[in-house]
Amino acid sequence: MSTDQTERETGSQFLPKFDDKGLLSAVVQDADSGAILMVAFMDQEAVDATLNTGIAHFHSRSRGTLWKKGETSGNTLQVEQILVDCDQDALVLRCLPAGPTCHTGAVSCFYRRLEDGILQPVKS
Amino acid sequence: MSTDQTERETGSQFLPKFDDKGLLSAVVQDADSGAILMVAFMDQEAVDATLNTGIAHFHSRSRGTLWKKGETSGNTLQVEQILVDCDQDALVLRCLPAGPTCHTGAVSCFYRRLEDGILQPVKS
Repeated sequence: MSTDQTERETGSQFLPKFDDKGLLSAVVQDADSGAILMVAFMDQEAVDATLNTGIAHFHSRSRGTLWKKGETSGNTLQVEQILVDCDQDALVLRCLPAGPTCHTGAVSCFYRRLEDGILQPVKS
Repeated sequence: MSTDQTERETGSQFLPKFDDKGLLSAVVQDADSGAILMVAFMDQEAVDATLNTGIAHFHSRSRGTLWKKGETSGNTLQVEQILVDCDQDALVLRCLPAGPTCHTGAVSCFYRRLEDGILQPVKS
């Protein structure tokens, strides 16, 4: 294992590992309920904006720009804790949401479960 | 909103939306504790293998191949439930892990938190 990889996995330095598009995965988890609210991507700019403001920012792959979640709807995500995975290419943002996280109005984007090949509503 | 998008967001059809590399995001959550154990990617082959076996399979971006989690270590993930997000480009696999999920031996790959710019161990 390279020194870089050892430091990344066992060290205390935050060395986020972005992919060839400059992105890493970000999972938003409700800090109170533990429910997974959404999954998105962050680039360095989104990581910096999130750390600087305490409000979750992502990189919109469709628009190719910085995306402050809730900028229009007001349904922002206040970041309580950030967890970092072994190889530092994924983050969990434990958040307090100001309102429904999903643009559909659902509390979580994960409002359906797959059962026997069919999507069914999840009780929330 | 296009018919395709409406069906994808509100319908009961499973229409997984893969990106330009043929991948979608997959988050593994412990079905009992709600802890997030790992984040990876799936292609159509990994989705099919997971649905056919009930054991989590992913696509290894580094090796470019199908990856049955735990094939070597024995630390497989038994899938109890699959949640699908609004635009069907992310899945949550609620799993019962056979052992530690992380290759480091940690229960979860998310064994560190970011605090004041420094990574600190998370109590598990």
